[in-house]
Amino acid sequence: MTIGIDLGGTKILTALIDSRGKIVLSDQRATLASEGPDIIIEAMLDSIRNALKQADASPAEIGTIGIAAAGLADSRTGVLYTSPNLPGWHHVPLRDRIQQSLGIKTFLINDAKAAALGEYRFGAGRGTDYLIYVTLGTGIGGGIVINGKIYGGATGLAGEIGHMTIDDNGPKCYCGNTGCWEVLASGTAMAREAKRLITSGADTSILDLTGGDIEKVTAEIINTAALNGDRPATELIAWTSHNIGVGLANLINIFNPRLIVIGGGLSKMGDMLLKPAYEVAGQRAFKEAYDAVRFAPAGLGGSSGVLGAAAFARDQLKKGR
Amino acid sequence: MTIGIDLGGTKILTALIDSRGKIVLSDQRATLASEGPDIIIEAMLDSIRNALKQADASPAEIGTIGIAAAGLADSRTGVLYTSPNLPGWHHVPLRDRIQQSLGIKTFLINDAKAAALGEYRFGAGRGTDYLIYVTLGTGIGGGIVINGKIYGGATGLAGEIGHMTIDDNGPKCYCGNTGCWEVLASGTAMAREAKRLITSGADTSILDLTGGDIEKVTAEIINTAALNGDRPATELIAWTSHNIGVGLANLINIFNPRLIVIGGGLSKMGDMLLKPAYEVAGQRAFKEAYDAVRFAPAGLGGSSGVLGAAAFARDQLKKGR
Repeated sequence: MTIGIDLGGTKILTALIDSRGKIVLSDQRATLASEGPDIIIEAMLDSIRNALKQADASPAEIGTIGIAAAGLADSRTGVLYTSPNLPGWHHVPLRDRIQQSLGIKTFLINDAKAAALGEYRFGAGRGTDYLIYVTLGTGIGGGIVINGKIYGGATGLAGEIGHMTIDDNGPKCYCGNTGCWEVLASGTAMAREAKRLITSGADTSILDLTGGDIEKVTAEIINTAALNGDRPATELIAWTSHNIGVGLANLINIFNPRLIVIGGGLSKMGDMLLKPAYEVAGQRAFKEAYDAVRFAPAGLGGSSGVLGAAAFARDQLKKGR
Repeated sequence: MTIGIDLGGTKILTALIDSRGKIVLSDQRATLASEGPDIIIEAMLDSIRNALKQADASPAEIGTIGIAAAGLADSRTGVLYTSPNLPGWHHVPLRDRIQQSLGIKTFLINDAKAAALGEYRFGAGRGTDYLIYVTLGTGIGGGIVINGKIYGGATGLAGEIGHMTIDDNGPKCYCGNTGCWEVLASGTAMAREAKRLITSGADTSILDLTGGDIEKVTAEIINTAALNGDRPATELIAWTSHNIGVGLANLINIFNPRLIVIGGGLSKMGDMLLKPAYEVAGQRAFKEAYDAVRFAPAGLGGSSGVLGAAAFARDQLKKGR
């Protein structure tokens, strides 16, 4: 058996996974993001111990642990350099901390890369080479599968597709760059623009849907407003679709993928958001490359990270890493 | 022996290459670009026949021919879909036309991909995995080397890095996209902006350097003006450097390469253009990924295309393609 553990900004998900990639048992708890690395690593250990206990399994029965973590994760060193959703995490040796505490060989991988591998092995992209997984959520993450393997680049940091500039004159991103895809096509971007519209006095029902609390404006609320016929909300979704399409066109021109799997919270908005995005990509990418690509929604939902991290760990173990 | 032939918008270069990758003999002639495919293919054949004749070699002594062509080249089908510098080329079966005329097994590869492979095997990137070759010239092309092989994507069309949008509100590109890297950081982009400055009455000596002919404004002329202290020319180079840097940061965040090799006509401007570009990339890319990358000028000059195309053809032949 393998353990996959997915460390996100809002929750920690631990899963015990059998040799065929089936989740036997899982443990989920909130990430106390503001508490910093020590408390969170303790919570991860507790979550793993709890899963083992529930399964009546000992650490000796676990071959390896794969950690999927949101942020800039170096698979070679096992260090999580930074994480946009985990304040206070700077160059934390997450892999070694878990490995040393439990005595189980552990591996670290970025969460979007893990999800990409999960979708490739078990989900929407099963067996499809040249696959890109794009997660549209709070931010935008990505994982690139080439010849069945996650592409990590020289030092395991590749795939930061959310931080490609698509509008040099666009808003500043936390990463230091400007006009990143992520600041123009994520849930955070949508909420930011909606707040700007509200503050500037736009005629919109968005605020009514949050009981007047501007801090509660989310992509989901904007979606609801649009479904109710709210025009600024509809235009905001069109703006987001456009920006998603610009980034997809870049990926198609650069990677000539066979399949782009779309996951993450925003993807739940479905056709209203994504169909126009695919059309924009079709108008912008080279026709021959666009004709070669297919789009598919993620198939594993919230489990792609733990399944992919576990698969990654098993692969690394096999290679004797 | 192998033949490498590089079909560009301005010239056709044919080289006879020995088994160690040394150019034994070459033939160069102008591309009569406006004459269309038939005349140009005839010129390619004539160039190859002339090279063989000069070397006193028969077609039977040539193992394979590799064609490097500017444009959207499909290595699987051997078809050149489009070429920005070759008017009238639409879905031309270039590989088969050459192969059938000479009876020598032939392969087709995009010219920037060929140059990338050439630089990886014989030039500035010898033996460096995770290499990206960027050619800054009339346009911007690229070749991505992963684990020692050219990354072609699902249908061989990958690597069109010049057509990633870096400024969605930027100028329209011939490819149908807007704000492509190529329309903001190529020699063509520099000339276009200089013409715009001149037409709008900027106080610049650029036009004096062309004898008053605005059509003769080139990146080289702008470079000369800047070296003479011309302020608009200097600012135009700074603008280009910035835009080059934005695109490089994207490549670093997406690919986490170990080496970026810079070639093409613009790269001859050297530090004045490239040093600020590298600094911009450093300010924008993730620090850890930027720290992992090195920049190097192309080492093979104009021969990278023929050397890379020949190496590609030998590789394909070995694989029994």
